[in-house]
Amino acid sequence: MTGFALQIHHTDGPARTGVITTARGEIRTPAFMPLGTTATVKAMLPRSVRETGADILLGNTYHLMLRPGAERIARLGGLHRFMNWPRPILTDSGGFQVMSLAGLRKLTEEGVSFQSHIDGSTHLLSPERAMAIQDLLGSDIQMVLDECPAYPASESAIETSLALSMRWAKRSKDAFVKAEGRACFGIVQGGTYSHLRARSATELQAIGFDGYAVGGLAVGEGQAAMFETLEATVPHLPADRPRYLMGVGKPADIIGAVARGIDMFDCVLPTRSGRNGQAFTKAGAVNLRNARFADDPLPLEADCPCPACIDYSRAYLHHLVKAKEILASMLLTWHNLTHYQWLMSELRMAIAEGRLAARAAALLSGLAEEGESPAA
Amino acid sequence: MTGFALQIHHTDGPARTGVITTARGEIRTPAFMPLGTTATVKAMLPRSVRETGADILLGNTYHLMLRPGAERIARLGGLHRFMNWPRPILTDSGGFQVMSLAGLRKLTEEGVSFQSHIDGSTHLLSPERAMAIQDLLGSDIQMVLDECPAYPASESAIETSLALSMRWAKRSKDAFVKAEGRACFGIVQGGTYSHLRARSATELQAIGFDGYAVGGLAVGEGQAAMFETLEATVPHLPADRPRYLMGVGKPADIIGAVARGIDMFDCVLPTRSGRNGQAFTKAGAVNLRNARFADDPLPLEADCPCPACIDYSRAYLHHLVKAKEILASMLLTWHNLTHYQWLMSELRMAIAEGRLAARAAALLSGLAEEGESPAA
Repeated sequence: MTGFALQIHHTDGPARTGVITTARGEIRTPAFMPLGTTATVKAMLPRSVRETGADILLGNTYHLMLRPGAERIARLGGLHRFMNWPRPILTDSGGFQVMSLAGLRKLTEEGVSFQSHIDGSTHLLSPERAMAIQDLLGSDIQMVLDECPAYPASESAIETSLALSMRWAKRSKDAFVKAEGRACFGIVQGGTYSHLRARSATELQAIGFDGYAVGGLAVGEGQAAMFETLEATVPHLPADRPRYLMGVGKPADIIGAVARGIDMFDCVLPTRSGRNGQAFTKAGAVNLRNARFADDPLPLEADCPCPACIDYSRAYLHHLVKAKEILASMLLTWHNLTHYQWLMSELRMAIAEGRLAARAAALLSGLAEEGESPAA
Repeated sequence: MTGFALQIHHTDGPARTGVITTARGEIRTPAFMPLGTTATVKAMLPRSVRETGADILLGNTYHLMLRPGAERIARLGGLHRFMNWPRPILTDSGGFQVMSLAGLRKLTEEGVSFQSHIDGSTHLLSPERAMAIQDLLGSDIQMVLDECPAYPASESAIETSLALSMRWAKRSKDAFVKAEGRACFGIVQGGTYSHLRARSATELQAIGFDGYAVGGLAVGEGQAAMFETLEATVPHLPADRPRYLMGVGKPADIIGAVARGIDMFDCVLPTRSGRNGQAFTKAGAVNLRNARFADDPLPLEADCPCPACIDYSRAYLHHLVKAKEILASMLLTWHNLTHYQWLMSELRMAIAEGRLAARAAALLSGLAEEGESPAA
């Protein structure tokens, strides 16, 4: 017995709702994981993040290994204690950020060497090092190191990359330091090629993981291709293990992915957009910088329980955004995380009541009311 | 009956402790007023500011008149509602910020015309307009417009400036819109010239104000000159009205000014220093950016009740400061405001118990322990 388990309480077509048990508490699924990149959910106290309804955070191995360093965090009692979040944390492997942030990358069979974007220092991230770092952090759900190919890429390039990722997945699993209630997830790759996704899912199950992520999506392929890829992938994953769609997404992406059987999500949008003056609402994303809010005495959303909506007018939020006040980032991040957790709660209830299709349609139709494009 | 009153409960030499009653609640004195410059105490929710022990905030007329505009705030229900702070607010007259922030200033008998530092638009701040703005904001304690001469200045320059400030004080008082529990304060000027300070205090009392501020200090004259000026000024002020030392100061400045009979203070230091990684402690100011904190598992201060000290290590705070995380500003501002309110509480208790001299000496001796210079 691992102590880590998914209990499915209800299904509705491919969608399911339930609870993941970990050593540090339960995660209601489908779940949205706010980003705690550098050991902080930006502009939020952990107690406030919890108030929004979050059961689990995501930490970034790349950022933490560079600053303050995984060994330092371990000496200080681990990531949970360091950042004062006693509940579950999932950490990525660092691979994606190395590809997008680091300098002078060199990819070999052994791993990827790179220069820190902070101080130019040289590092090697191998499957073994990625798992060692996640063990030092004390992560509850640890991700294998994979290669994230650029998009678009040819089928043969994707196939070559996938083969490397599968060899790294095996080495990651072998290096994973098992502990009661702790999990290691594999990552399905294969671009938008259905047969490669199926192959990847099958090969990962041969290695055997506690959960399965779908990686390499939301990189520019578009929502339709993403949904098609999910439909081609999810049937090849075991029903009794969590399924995690990495880096997704806008509310409409999440709704569609939940309907296709995904249990877990993470995305920078609610937090980053909040710092940019953008708010997610039931009627779509709005930009508080817009001059039409300057004299608007109404709350951002009438029925939202977050402090931005309870205590302030749109005019005040507009003022804070224009004045570049820190409180703008604090309040809009709080609102956006509240909105995302509200969405997950709505989806969980709809699945439990067997009416996901109708609820999803209603949610999507509400989003279409407002003409503004969501935060990018 | 005005509804605005100072009740003195205890005195200890020139020092006194009591309560100021306003229409929006009581202010325990000696009081420290955090800066809510642009209708926000930077990086803090109002509820958190209140948790630190603050009874009253300061709002800046200059900033608010330019953005979002006093008329707009009035339309939205006033400053208290706009920023969600239902307790007392003191507003300055804008004169000091015009001198330090605005462009193309032109001073005449009528007032001062200037260009906004935000958009270059032209404005006139006169005694009448300064009071009209403070009325639109709904301020509980309103300050007269005065001229703030540059430091250093010759005696004759100070005398000329003082004469103008006294004429403006009369016009401000005449323009003040009286309301139940609302106050108008005069501002004593006169540089470091005792006879000019005495003259200013006498002339202001002839006009008649609900409280008296000491302005034009903490501008470079040094602590000794500031204390001497207070000793030359306070005896000329009425004992039954609040005395407010504007823009002061470091903890040692506040301790010395309280001992000389001052009841109210405001200063940018705890909030601005917090955003710069500096923390005020019983042992002096420390800079969390310092590498010696990188592995320090101890709390910032063992007996401080703020979240920075309760929930985190110095190593974590150091990490946040180095990573330029918003949470660094949030936690260190919270700590610094908690520290300032703790200091005021200590001084109030010491006065009530008739042991201010001993307590002040102990507090100052603690500050000297640490070699680092306080935040500038």
